[in-house]
Amino acid sequence: MLVVLEKNASENDIQILVEQIESLGFKAQMIPGSFRTAIGVLGDKNYEIASALGRFPGVKEIIRVTKPYKLVSREFKNEDTIIKVGGHEIGKDFIVMAGPCSVESEEQIMTVAEGVKKAGAHILRGGAFKPRTTPYAFQGLGLEGLKLLKKAKIRFGLPIVTELLHVKNIDVVAEYTDIIQIGARNMQNFEMLQEVGKLKKPILLKRGLAARMDEFLLAAEYILNAGNPNVILCERGIRTFETATRNTLDLNIVALIKQVSHLPIITDPSHASGISSLVTPLSLASYAVGAHGLILEVHPEPQKALSDGQQSLDLKSFSDLMKKLSHYQNVL
Amino acid sequence: MLVVLEKNASENDIQILVEQIESLGFKAQMIPGSFRTAIGVLGDKNYEIASALGRFPGVKEIIRVTKPYKLVSREFKNEDTIIKVGGHEIGKDFIVMAGPCSVESEEQIMTVAEGVKKAGAHILRGGAFKPRTTPYAFQGLGLEGLKLLKKAKIRFGLPIVTELLHVKNIDVVAEYTDIIQIGARNMQNFEMLQEVGKLKKPILLKRGLAARMDEFLLAAEYILNAGNPNVILCERGIRTFETATRNTLDLNIVALIKQVSHLPIITDPSHASGISSLVTPLSLASYAVGAHGLILEVHPEPQKALSDGQQSLDLKSFSDLMKKLSHYQNVL
Amino acid sequence: MLVVLEKNASENDIQILVEQIESLGFKAQMIPGSFRTAIGVLGDKNYEIASALGRFPGVKEIIRVTKPYKLVSREFKNEDTIIKVGGHEIGKDFIVMAGPCSVESEEQIMTVAEGVKKAGAHILRGGAFKPRTTPYAFQGLGLEGLKLLKKAKIRFGLPIVTELLHVKNIDVVAEYTDIIQIGARNMQNFEMLQEVGKLKKPILLKRGLAARMDEFLLAAEYILNAGNPNVILCERGIRTFETATRNTLDLNIVALIKQVSHLPIITDPSHASGISSLVTPLSLASYAVGAHGLILEVHPEPQKALSDGQQSLDLKSFSDLMKKLSHYQNVL
Amino acid sequence: MLVVLEKNASENDIQILVEQIESLGFKAQMIPGSFRTAIGVLGDKNYEIASALGRFPGVKEIIRVTKPYKLVSREFKNEDTIIKVGGHEIGKDFIVMAGPCSVESEEQIMTVAEGVKKAGAHILRGGAFKPRTTPYAFQGLGLEGLKLLKKAKIRFGLPIVTELLHVKNIDVVAEYTDIIQIGARNMQNFEMLQEVGKLKKPILLKRGLAARMDEFLLAAEYILNAGNPNVILCERGIRTFETATRNTLDLNIVALIKQVSHLPIITDPSHASGISSLVTPLSLASYAVGAHGLILEVHPEPQKALSDGQQSLDLKSFSDLMKKLSHYQNVL
Repeated sequence: MLVVLEKNASENDIQILVEQIESLGFKAQMIPGSFRTAIGVLGDKNYEIASALGRFPGVKEIIRVTKPYKLVSREFKNEDTIIKVGGHEIGKDFIVMAGPCSVESEEQIMTVAEGVKKAGAHILRGGAFKPRTTPYAFQGLGLEGLKLLKKAKIRFGLPIVTELLHVKNIDVVAEYTDIIQIGARNMQNFEMLQEVGKLKKPILLKRGLAARMDEFLLAAEYILNAGNPNVILCERGIRTFETATRNTLDLNIVALIKQVSHLPIITDPSHASGISSLVTPLSLASYAVGAHGLILEVHPEPQKALSDGQQSLDLKSFSDLMKKLSHYQNVL
Repeated sequence: MLVVLEKNASENDIQILVEQIESLGFKAQMIPGSFRTAIGVLGDKNYEIASALGRFPGVKEIIRVTKPYKLVSREFKNEDTIIKVGGHEIGKDFIVMAGPCSVESEEQIMTVAEGVKKAGAHILRGGAFKPRTTPYAFQGLGLEGLKLLKKAKIRFGLPIVTELLHVKNIDVVAEYTDIIQIGARNMQNFEMLQEVGKLKKPILLKRGLAARMDEFLLAAEYILNAGNPNVILCERGIRTFETATRNTLDLNIVALIKQVSHLPIITDPSHASGISSLVTPLSLASYAVGAHGLILEVHPEPQKALSDGQQSLDLKSFSDLMKKLSHYQNVL
Repeated sequence: MLVVLEKNASENDIQILVEQIESLGFKAQMIPGSFRTAIGVLGDKNYEIASALGRFPGVKEIIRVTKPYKLVSREFKNEDTIIKVGGHEIGKDFIVMAGPCSVESEEQIMTVAEGVKKAGAHILRGGAFKPRTTPYAFQGLGLEGLKLLKKAKIRFGLPIVTELLHVKNIDVVAEYTDIIQIGARNMQNFEMLQEVGKLKKPILLKRGLAARMDEFLLAAEYILNAGNPNVILCERGIRTFETATRNTLDLNIVALIKQVSHLPIITDPSHASGISSLVTPLSLASYAVGAHGLILEVHPEPQKALSDGQQSLDLKSFSDLMKKLSHYQNVL
Repeated sequence: MLVVLEKNASENDIQILVEQIESLGFKAQMIPGSFRTAIGVLGDKNYEIASALGRFPGVKEIIRVTKPYKLVSREFKNEDTIIKVGGHEIGKDFIVMAGPCSVESEEQIMTVAEGVKKAGAHILRGGAFKPRTTPYAFQGLGLEGLKLLKKAKIRFGLPIVTELLHVKNIDVVAEYTDIIQIGARNMQNFEMLQEVGKLKKPILLKRGLAARMDEFLLAAEYILNAGNPNVILCERGIRTFETATRNTLDLNIVALIKQVSHLPIITDPSHASGISSLVTPLSLASYAVGAHGLILEVHPEPQKALSDGQQSLDLKSFSDLMKKLSHYQNVL
């Protein structure tokens, strides 16, 4: 951490600062400059407690140098984390998770599961407990939905990913699913992060709508720090000023996270765009940028979906996308 | 809801759409235009299920007309909601909640409580369970912190507001506090919203970092819909591209919410700016724009605070601010 | 346009509105609803003048239905616009424009031109007049830079793209360059848009840092409306809350613009990320999403560049990228 | 500037860096740390040319310490800049500029001028050349509009502020107006900044929609650096994710700029909100936060305005606002 001083900071100001830095257990290193002076704050202690140095007279600015995350970083562990689910290696192979936004009925989920399996999907997604902005929207089938997902899993040999919405449901969700999804709105639900950190089951952690990269990685750090190293990151579009699409898919961060973290990262082009006709090009772009996989909304009849029909692929479009992806994979 | 058609939508496209709208239980109203046609979708049913109409051939766009919230709106209840806490009327009088970001020790909280009481604050704020971006930062004193707040409450006659961080702690937090705060990161923690909706205790609901006004009001709607009408809204700064301040205080939304909703709304200039020297001018601006109160971080020695020292007022500055506010109130 | 009425709008309110709509030359179409009424505003006139209807008593909201752009839309002209530059067809083939941020010296520009030509670039980019946030940064070589670009063009057979920074330089820039670039900061410099609209020379129009899709297309509409149909759009990253990268590359909008507009659109991964190690993955993603080309910063010694060294590729990395792109093109 | 090194940077990496720093004319100062090392880059030279240091092996990050602006900062000149216009002192007294978005006719401008004068406005605003997002909207009366403004100025003794839209019109605009406005879209039109910098006439510089504080101040720095010290800053709302209002008024930055710069700063609540019913509360908030004045859209019949009718005050509302402002001023 760097404490930048005002041009006119006095000797006395500086001495008080140095004493405070040292009383907090850090070492103070003077960095004289031609225009102004700075003080380096060195040591292994938690830098949070030093942020109040900004309040001392003579201080112009506090600049953080060390990154706040550790366990998720490549500086801590350089080799890629690979997470095995049902014979698939997430973080190594390109993995496609597909299925409806909400499980609506046995017929619906069986039709989708059969269709996406045939087209080459690796994992079945489906919502049983749904986070909805308004209390008046369809909230999912709950436990009944989990049972239907399990049935589809057994029939078609597809592992399942589904969202944990309420911490109180963690046991039942963990019992039925192969991967537990934490939604964007819960990315900083620290109670949930700590509870799933006590499991060993893989966690699909979606980036919050307004989460900076550091905050996203720190949410994962909470889970690793609680004991669960099996975290799959998911970029699902961020909130920007642009209103022509539901969100803005941020592939910059996918490429950058691959450099700074060893965790696998996939994308969600359905939520990132909100428009079904954009899902295929954005899926191809995600592949090209180096994402480890996709999670996609697929519905047998999108125009009748109880949620997110606007952004779901039908089975034919999904199958066409899988063919395009396989062309890419054959070549590269 | 309005279904805008493509210029070249066929008679057949339109007929299929009308049938679908009616099969969902709505009435279809044709709106012929000189350039293109639209179909009005009328009725009392949940409009969510009609959003998939965008998938039908011939449809260019879906436009929502009706606002998705009800109970929180002035169209539903025109008169201001007034919430009584310890003899104060929130929503009527200008109420100041003040205290440290975190309760750190008995001495600290007693010093602050005494100081803010003397200066004229109405309610004591203090964090016992702290939401921290990193797992390595100070997480609060927990139950011990709640007990210290209670002690301060009794000694100085100040009602308390503190944050509920984990749903599992709802009973103990509700037992100790007068107002339960839901933090910005939990604004769409629907489990938490539903649980506090079962209480009668006042809820201070902070706006999420990237929540649009409708989403903010819908989060409140969840609480009202679950049975608790005592919600105080809090604008605490939104996340924007600007990095010179921690967040951007959005007073536009304070003025607008006062027009569309009957719920009280206060501001949090400490978090909204992240810079203590901005807290006083932003507090005065909040008063002038018509906010119903403030929640402020005050620390006896901000430069030694374990969290948010950068943005806390000391007791002297807080007292000066209260004097300025009283000048405003005498005149207006 | 749709005028949505308040629930309690009176007969008299409605009558006044209808009269006003008709006095402005539009037709008013009543759209009764079960909860509230709306009025459709129909006609060919400019809708801008009707936006003040929102001020009338009884009006809740004004909703635009018709898109504000025409000439750039596929509804107006369905087939792709193809722009020929030096034997290349922009809008049809995948075109790579490469070169240094600033022309710094004859040796530098010749080295880059030779290198990018050999690697397969189609067009040489280089800045002679540089837009700099601060008046104290290197402002470019000016006319001398243009002459050096021309020299490189002749020696290596590469058409040139360079930025027009000051309208007063339009003649000299148009004389030397094959494509005139309008930078992001000038996207709504309407004087410049109108002046380049009088030329026939192709214009590379960069999206503004905070421009919504409609505004971007309307800036192009200015140029087309002034008489120049040869506009190439360029997505160069938008400004968001994310600070880990310089900007956020918005590939959603590339895919969407290809659907709504006939104009070619390329991307600028150098500015969109600001980090050289991200340029290659983002270039591949741009290809995969369907962009019509790239504009890239390439410098023989990025660590010595006078501007944007942080985000420039060196010649070796550029050459590797071109090989990867050619693999994609062979397959797809 | 601080060059932060990778944990594993080699001795050789460091030596190369130090040589490069010194060859650029700076002094390198080693800052050893317990976890990683950094190098301070010291000297008076332009730091831009050192940004490419980020490309050297072993470098993790470049951190700027010194702020890039000088002439506009309080470190350079501590006392407030006061700009005299028609007997008013901008930067000292609270100044209200009011008038229509566009000058539409002699009758309209005379009615407004008379009304705002009577209500206590100090300066008359009015647009003659209008920046419009679409080429199909009303573009203003041009020179005719300037002449009408001059007529109103003479009749009612109100100095004028109007926008310079095209650099080519600088002479005629400067001839007619007392203050030249640079609109938000031209905040980084460097040609325009340099040209108005050659004048002595006061410049009202509006903040760009997505301009960070530093960029806003650097745009002003361009004007001061070119020789014109008479710059009035104007916060007119920034672009955020919020769509309930047209823009988001950023009063944080008003309070902060007053601390870091000596230039006067006013706000524009009309554009910042886009909703006439919010203009009064936001004007009072601007006063309370310490702004030096307001620029407001006032129209005799907002519902008939050719532009921005949605956000204009009528004369009665403006007069009421001025009375409220005078109450504040009498007390504080």
